[in-house]
Amino acid sequence: MASELTLYNSLTREKEVFKPLTEGRVGMYVCGPTVYSDVHLGNCRTFVSFDVIYRYLMHQGFQVRYVRNITDVGHLEGDSDDVDAEDKISKKARLEALEPMEIAQKYANGFHDMMRVFNTLRPSIEPRATGHIPEQIKMVQDIIDNGFAYEVNGSVYFDTLKFIEQKDAYGKLSGRKVDELMAESRDDLKNQSEKKHPADFAIWMKAAPSHLMRWSSPWSDGFPGWHLECSAMSTKYLGETFDIHGGGNDLKFPHHENEIAQNVGSCNHAGARYWLHTNMLLMNGRKMSKSDGNTITPTQLFTGDSPHVSKGYSPMVVKFFMLQSHYRSTLDLTNEALAAAEKGYRRLMEANQVLQEMRFTGNHQSGALDQDINGLLDRVTYEMNDDFNTPKALAVLFELVTKINSFKGGQLTMEGLTPSTFQRLQETFTVFIQDVFALENELVSAGGNDEFEVLDGVMKMVIELRAQARANKDWGTADKIRDTLNELKVVLKDGKEGTSWGVE
Amino acid sequence: MASELTLYNSLTREKEVFKPLTEGRVGMYVCGPTVYSDVHLGNCRTFVSFDVIYRYLMHQGFQVRYVRNITDVGHLEGDSDDVDAEDKISKKARLEALEPMEIAQKYANGFHDMMRVFNTLRPSIEPRATGHIPEQIKMVQDIIDNGFAYEVNGSVYFDTLKFIEQKDAYGKLSGRKVDELMAESRDDLKNQSEKKHPADFAIWMKAAPSHLMRWSSPWSDGFPGWHLECSAMSTKYLGETFDIHGGGNDLKFPHHENEIAQNVGSCNHAGARYWLHTNMLLMNGRKMSKSDGNTITPTQLFTGDSPHVSKGYSPMVVKFFMLQSHYRSTLDLTNEALAAAEKGYRRLMEANQVLQEMRFTGNHQSGALDQDINGLLDRVTYEMNDDFNTPKALAVLFELVTKINSFKGGQLTMEGLTPSTFQRLQETFTVFIQDVFALENELVSAGGNDEFEVLDGVMKMVIELRAQARANKDWGTADKIRDTLNELKVVLKDGKEGTSWGVE
Repeated sequence: MASELTLYNSLTREKEVFKPLTEGRVGMYVCGPTVYSDVHLGNCRTFVSFDVIYRYLMHQGFQVRYVRNITDVGHLEGDSDDVDAEDKISKKARLEALEPMEIAQKYANGFHDMMRVFNTLRPSIEPRATGHIPEQIKMVQDIIDNGFAYEVNGSVYFDTLKFIEQKDAYGKLSGRKVDELMAESRDDLKNQSEKKHPADFAIWMKAAPSHLMRWSSPWSDGFPGWHLECSAMSTKYLGETFDIHGGGNDLKFPHHENEIAQNVGSCNHAGARYWLHTNMLLMNGRKMSKSDGNTITPTQLFTGDSPHVSKGYSPMVVKFFMLQSHYRSTLDLTNEALAAAEKGYRRLMEANQVLQEMRFTGNHQSGALDQDINGLLDRVTYEMNDDFNTPKALAVLFELVTKINSFKGGQLTMEGLTPSTFQRLQETFTVFIQDVFALENELVSAGGNDEFEVLDGVMKMVIELRAQARANKDWGTADKIRDTLNELKVVLKDGKEGTSWGVE
Repeated sequence: MASELTLYNSLTREKEVFKPLTEGRVGMYVCGPTVYSDVHLGNCRTFVSFDVIYRYLMHQGFQVRYVRNITDVGHLEGDSDDVDAEDKISKKARLEALEPMEIAQKYANGFHDMMRVFNTLRPSIEPRATGHIPEQIKMVQDIIDNGFAYEVNGSVYFDTLKFIEQKDAYGKLSGRKVDELMAESRDDLKNQSEKKHPADFAIWMKAAPSHLMRWSSPWSDGFPGWHLECSAMSTKYLGETFDIHGGGNDLKFPHHENEIAQNVGSCNHAGARYWLHTNMLLMNGRKMSKSDGNTITPTQLFTGDSPHVSKGYSPMVVKFFMLQSHYRSTLDLTNEALAAAEKGYRRLMEANQVLQEMRFTGNHQSGALDQDINGLLDRVTYEMNDDFNTPKALAVLFELVTKINSFKGGQLTMEGLTPSTFQRLQETFTVFIQDVFALENELVSAGGNDEFEVLDGVMKMVIELRAQARANKDWGTADKIRDTLNELKVVLKDGKEGTSWGVE
């Protein structure tokens, strides 16, 4: 069941065999967070999904350059490009009485912390929008030079109408009907009167006098439009044409559609060849929304401090829950589904522990069992090769979990299994759990007690058992306790307030 | 013993009372790492020192904006400004076959990880040199406009001689004699023939065709000189005049001296008012050096994988060892000193544990003991106010440790101590250990075993004790074990291969 890696390309709306531009190498760009508030759970899902994709590509032998940006300028309230709209980061800086870059740093730190909690890898390059102003100014100039942008009062707008007329490249990704876009009239512009057409969008914005973040440019002291940074930074680090562009579904339009327009408008290349989009995270069947209370933060989910969950679910349980859905499906977060995910996560991790400690007890003959297990192991990769289908790959792993538990319980013997297949079984579990899905083992600390609390509680009991053994002149037990603790470098200290313990 | 915060200003070579520009606020800039290799232990010492300074300033009620940069361009091999010299990051990129920004990201990640290992706080803003090209180009232009720089073949050099003649601002920090600098002749320039004088330095460098990192500028496609970024970024985020500039002693000349020249040359303000410099880390009495093997990496120090140490020392022991010297003193790393630091660290942390669990048993009368302890508590702050004298502050804490241990051992009663002083004692330990020195409690895991290993070892013993108790029909012991484990949510599972344990 050998298979090629195929992925669903949002651009063509088809599953395609993945052919990288350069054999053995992949360039992947993913739109990162706008760092003006704590990262949302929906964003976490997107970045966890692309982390698994990144890890799987590396597992498949690709050398991947994974670029994920930090948006720290240009993203205006309401995703607007009205020159009077406020920058999201500047606004937060005003509210928190901090410099915009302090805001960006604070929330970038928080984002990185959360990504670590979910055990994701850091990207190869994590460029910041403010760190690439010259590249963005150059791209604006190129687009102007190519006739696809115009300046009004120091701001520069992309001439979408002209672009549509001259290039067959607008609307493809998002499926927006170009006819409908063109039919919109200038009357729809309302106060955004600098634009020639409603479909036009800002690529450089003149800064109002009160605007904190500003750079000089040939057109004005201002700042780049939100869509521009991704075009400029993906081009800089991955080239004018590269392999994969990812992001959340909500970015398809206008962000990604406009990225393509900017790329074509500046250098006549469309950027990414494969576009991957993650779907939405729902809660209780509805879109998450602060205004109606149907929302939960990652931290609330971990601690259980929310009316929407009956208790806290650990980061790895939440991650497992995410991987149980395909990245292109909506994922509905409910307390019941999380509780089920917790059971599934534990079942998988326990079976893996059992498997890794298990010894081969088969008869070295290849029989039906060997074929069966090899077939399942092939299928794990087959499902992942099918557009990174994590739920199906997990389902196959669970078929193997049943076998592992049967080996352990004695309902199934290893007759007909070869040592090499058994070893492959062990390796596959290690690779997928640790390297691809990157699920950490939280079993020890899953009960709400942390390790130290458990250890402290057990040690207090051991101290009592030792005292009792001494009182009973049971020197065998007392010596056994002493020797074991010595070996573990645990020291007992007798003091005024009883015996305490510590580690040397 | 109330005292004002004083600090040793490298610029004036005197201890000065610290007066921030704006009451209650501090702007502090510290030169961060050049991210082309793993962070050195000496750098760790510098950043740990400034972390304690940052934390102490906040503890004293200041609102601190702490800016620490990442140098990811412009730092040439041998700290050269020869146009033919190779950029440190570009060179590493060539060697590792990666894009320069992948190198920068990789080693910035490693640096951040190490800073977390040492339990340091992240700065308020962490700007990157490549992220501030427009600001640096602007500063070069300002310096040219003010007559203190000249262009040759697309590179721009700071005119040190002219600056010395017109401004009384060069050599003050480093103590370089201006006469000697001026006496150097053009003949000393050798192949750096673009410079008018040996003391001149590059502020913009034309990129050789092979140079990977380059930006367009009014003078050439090139890159900023190494010294320029700190001037540009400190000015951007802290203003033309700000409070504190820190860095390692080795940066005093030429880096910091040239920073001051650039600041004065561009805006006639000298930047920082107080300059703080950390001293060198030695090993076995000599400078660390790769070439003669007298070197150790942080990781080698933690694992003990080095001929220079008899065993591994934990990050907190190493940090404690650093704090036992004043930041302006050289610190000599030897195995003996580390072993002593380990004992000291444990003694402090154990006493703190004892103290925080201790109950007040005094007679509510204020006597000599009350005065004594209050005097010592005052002195902790007094010593820290004296140029952040961590070794002396620690010494005072150890005087208090003796008292705490005497309370515990019964050699000293709390007679003459008031509850409020006892509470102040507890709070001071908490504040200094946790918030200012930020020493984490590693007692449990300090033995080389991690908590889980210890717990697993103890649990295996408990399982045997339980089996033995059952065999002996000692139901009291067996029940006690069962009940305690139930309470701790530890479950035992009897299986084919014996009894295993886990947490619910």
